[in-house]
Amino acid sequence: MSLRIGIMGIAGRMGRLLAEEVVAAGAVLAGGTVRGGDAGALLSASDAAIDFTHASAAAAHAASAAAAGKPLVLGTSGLSPEAEAAVARAAERVPVVYAANFAPGVNLVLALAERMAAALPAENYDAEIVEMHHRQKVDAPSGTALALGRAVARGRGTTLEAAGAESGRDGHCGARRTGAIGFAALRGGQVVGEHTVLFAAGAEHIALTHRSFDRRAYATGAVRAALWAHGRAPGLYDMKHVLGMA
Amino acid sequence: MSLRIGIMGIAGRMGRLLAEEVVAAGAVLAGGTVRGGDAGALLSASDAAIDFTHASAAAAHAASAAAAGKPLVLGTSGLSPEAEAAVARAAERVPVVYAANFAPGVNLVLALAERMAAALPAENYDAEIVEMHHRQKVDAPSGTALALGRAVARGRGTTLEAAGAESGRDGHCGARRTGAIGFAALRGGQVVGEHTVLFAAGAEHIALTHRSFDRRAYATGAVRAALWAHGRAPGLYDMKHVLGMA
Amino acid sequence: MSLRIGIMGIAGRMGRLLAEEVVAAGAVLAGGTVRGGDAGALLSASDAAIDFTHASAAAAHAASAAAAGKPLVLGTSGLSPEAEAAVARAAERVPVVYAANFAPGVNLVLALAERMAAALPAENYDAEIVEMHHRQKVDAPSGTALALGRAVARGRGTTLEAAGAESGRDGHCGARRTGAIGFAALRGGQVVGEHTVLFAAGAEHIALTHRSFDRRAYATGAVRAALWAHGRAPGLYDMKHVLGMA
Amino acid sequence: MSLRIGIMGIAGRMGRLLAEEVVAAGAVLAGGTVRGGDAGALLSASDAAIDFTHASAAAAHAASAAAAGKPLVLGTSGLSPEAEAAVARAAERVPVVYAANFAPGVNLVLALAERMAAALPAENYDAEIVEMHHRQKVDAPSGTALALGRAVARGRGTTLEAAGAESGRDGHCGARRTGAIGFAALRGGQVVGEHTVLFAAGAEHIALTHRSFDRRAYATGAVRAALWAHGRAPGLYDMKHVLGMA
Repeated sequence: MSLRIGIMGIAGRMGRLLAEEVVAAGAVLAGGTVRGGDAGALLSASDAAIDFTHASAAAAHAASAAAAGKPLVLGTSGLSPEAEAAVARAAERVPVVYAANFAPGVNLVLALAERMAAALPAENYDAEIVEMHHRQKVDAPSGTALALGRAVARGRGTTLEAAGAESGRDGHCGARRTGAIGFAALRGGQVVGEHTVLFAAGAEHIALTHRSFDRRAYATGAVRAALWAHGRAPGLYDMKHVLGMA
Repeated sequence: MSLRIGIMGIAGRMGRLLAEEVVAAGAVLAGGTVRGGDAGALLSASDAAIDFTHASAAAAHAASAAAAGKPLVLGTSGLSPEAEAAVARAAERVPVVYAANFAPGVNLVLALAERMAAALPAENYDAEIVEMHHRQKVDAPSGTALALGRAVARGRGTTLEAAGAESGRDGHCGARRTGAIGFAALRGGQVVGEHTVLFAAGAEHIALTHRSFDRRAYATGAVRAALWAHGRAPGLYDMKHVLGMA
Repeated sequence: MSLRIGIMGIAGRMGRLLAEEVVAAGAVLAGGTVRGGDAGALLSASDAAIDFTHASAAAAHAASAAAAGKPLVLGTSGLSPEAEAAVARAAERVPVVYAANFAPGVNLVLALAERMAAALPAENYDAEIVEMHHRQKVDAPSGTALALGRAVARGRGTTLEAAGAESGRDGHCGARRTGAIGFAALRGGQVVGEHTVLFAAGAEHIALTHRSFDRRAYATGAVRAALWAHGRAPGLYDMKHVLGMA
Repeated sequence: MSLRIGIMGIAGRMGRLLAEEVVAAGAVLAGGTVRGGDAGALLSASDAAIDFTHASAAAAHAASAAAAGKPLVLGTSGLSPEAEAAVARAAERVPVVYAANFAPGVNLVLALAERMAAALPAENYDAEIVEMHHRQKVDAPSGTALALGRAVARGRGTTLEAAGAESGRDGHCGARRTGAIGFAALRGGQVVGEHTVLFAAGAEHIALTHRSFDRRAYATGAVRAALWAHGRAPGLYDMKHVLGMA
């Protein structure tokens, strides 16, 4: 029997794409919520749910999924520490696939960024991450940019917190700290998503860029994650697990 | 008789280039100060002075030039409002050439950015300015980036203050405001200076980029400004005046 | 009464967009041809026709428009010298709007490229033009890239033929000739159109880039050209005339 | 005792950098040839030789090295098939390090390009390689661009010859062939070397770029290769062997 998938925020741009991709994948569209709709009712009618709505709804949706005992695919970024904690609690009871970016190409870029960082010493190569998104995006840096920063830190045998993020430089910020990871955010037009990680030394620059032209790739990946999550053990997963790159 | 030009901060990287370019231009190197040196003594021995030292010294150097009755070429960025006011007061008594960037190519880019902004309506085209400089730079956005922002605002019949700058986005910033001008700053390696102004609509992007590879172009332009300023009426000038593009 | 516009090649991707834009502009869709269809019959039923089909059909379509006494909007690139001559002959009898690119933003870029070339001496600044298009495109460089090259030549007071084009460097080509204009073509994915003109000196690079994300902008511009052409005197026009930038 | 290294073409730009780097590495500068000089005499006075002169000299220099029984580091690109064969013959008698690019960062990029190609199916992702070099460069594509193309082919389990290179598109070239690897060459200014490999699908682009700002990195790598080659078995090596990445 086909998997029944519910879509939070089905009336929005991503919600409609997700609904189309559920059908394209041969799964059953169990239904969807619109703003203020009853997530619990949707979850009880679904085998798994996908949420790309808004950071402020993540904690409640995660709790609903845990209460209903259903897997959740979570694609919002900019979660507060409290929301992050709520997601982690839910993941003790159900599988949660929580990724900054569901496009397969982005996950290749994350793996390459880690390898580049391992090969290019932080003393000589300054790592900077630039992202651009459409004018409606409300948070910065993007979740994918932060994921890139964490990949760079991991490649250097440290964490983003320990390495230090220099995000949104403005005013008198002082000279760049050696080993810090820089972030810059552009907003404009209808850019689906563009990310670059740059390693800059005096004698050479090495840059890796990913440009998304079609939000549908995110929807395709999210539906793939929902199909993958069904029947898994509880836990917090990301796209590396879904793609078998972990 | 050849013009005698004094260099503030002659021992630094820019100071040495300036000294070489003074000689290359057939002028006389009147001398230079090092950190904490006597700017007044230098100015009395010079027909004009060039200052690329640090924003914190701009007010004192401008006052010294006004007291000595000598033209000043000022190339530091990141001045405080008080320092800006001090420069303006000095310019009532002597010619002051105060430019964000002394490279001729940059000044062409400023003129083109203004024309682009006039042709591309702010309702449809989001203007974003990205700059990259070496890891030692202490302020952001660069003076040239701000000059680009002012050129865009001028092309749209407004000012940067009225249009609104979105600089250093970080955290929950909300959606982009229509008509705002965005700024992002990268730092790394030994980049002399790289600036892009991007106009982003849904169906098309138009971008103009300037990359400097050699700080010498700034020194050449600054010496040209000193030669030009000698004998002018008091006033606040920029490179457009020196290049005859004003 | 509304203008009746006929579309050559109405069944193709551009043909369908053109048909939609005819309707969106409040004009009447007079009909269209498919491969091998009767252009003469279409023209007799139309007040103006638009042709984005293929370079090999341009001469015949231009002759048909001249015979029918109807304006023609011609958007194919890669015309042979014979086809160019046939278009010029038709333009003695009817208005022909023949443009490399019908997007308004591209025409701004053409105007800016000419101004950049006028300001940056050919002895010091090497002009290179790079374009990228989708994998189906059969000719190179694109018509828009050639139009950029002609704009650069014009800004330098010469022609592309006299300046010399270095297109498709491959093998032992020898050193770059001073004043030559270089062309390079990339093909891949579904890129609608991306063009850069770069002026490269030793100490600085200045680049202007246009990226199209939606072919619809071409259709909108072409329909605008058809409306503009109706009732004009015979002649060969381009988008600068239509946009009032000539 | 320190290794004695001879430099072919010691009076040129690269030759002088090589001489400086020999000294900086603590080796002995055994001498150098200028145009038309006696390579055999230089080789007999050296423990190893470095040749960055010109493709036309590669066969003769390789033969001289083989005759003298001394290792050769060869950094010219654009060799004819005959010269390639002569280099291969010499490598049966002495160690020859023959690389498209001696910069360590470039060799990382070659390894990453191979991995990207392995992950991104040729049916969906068109691979295009763009390079830019200074206006004096006489051949295209650069040796490094071709090395990138071979790395992409290797990642796809084929060879550049079998995959098919589309280099220097110009005129009516027809649609892009699936699986082909495209090359485009820009020339201008004093660009030391800039290479991009782009994988373009309809929904996403992934690009990897390397920019060299200082030819010295090549000289440093070449001297390192000479030190490494001394005492090795005869054979044809590249920088992957020198860097331990093979």
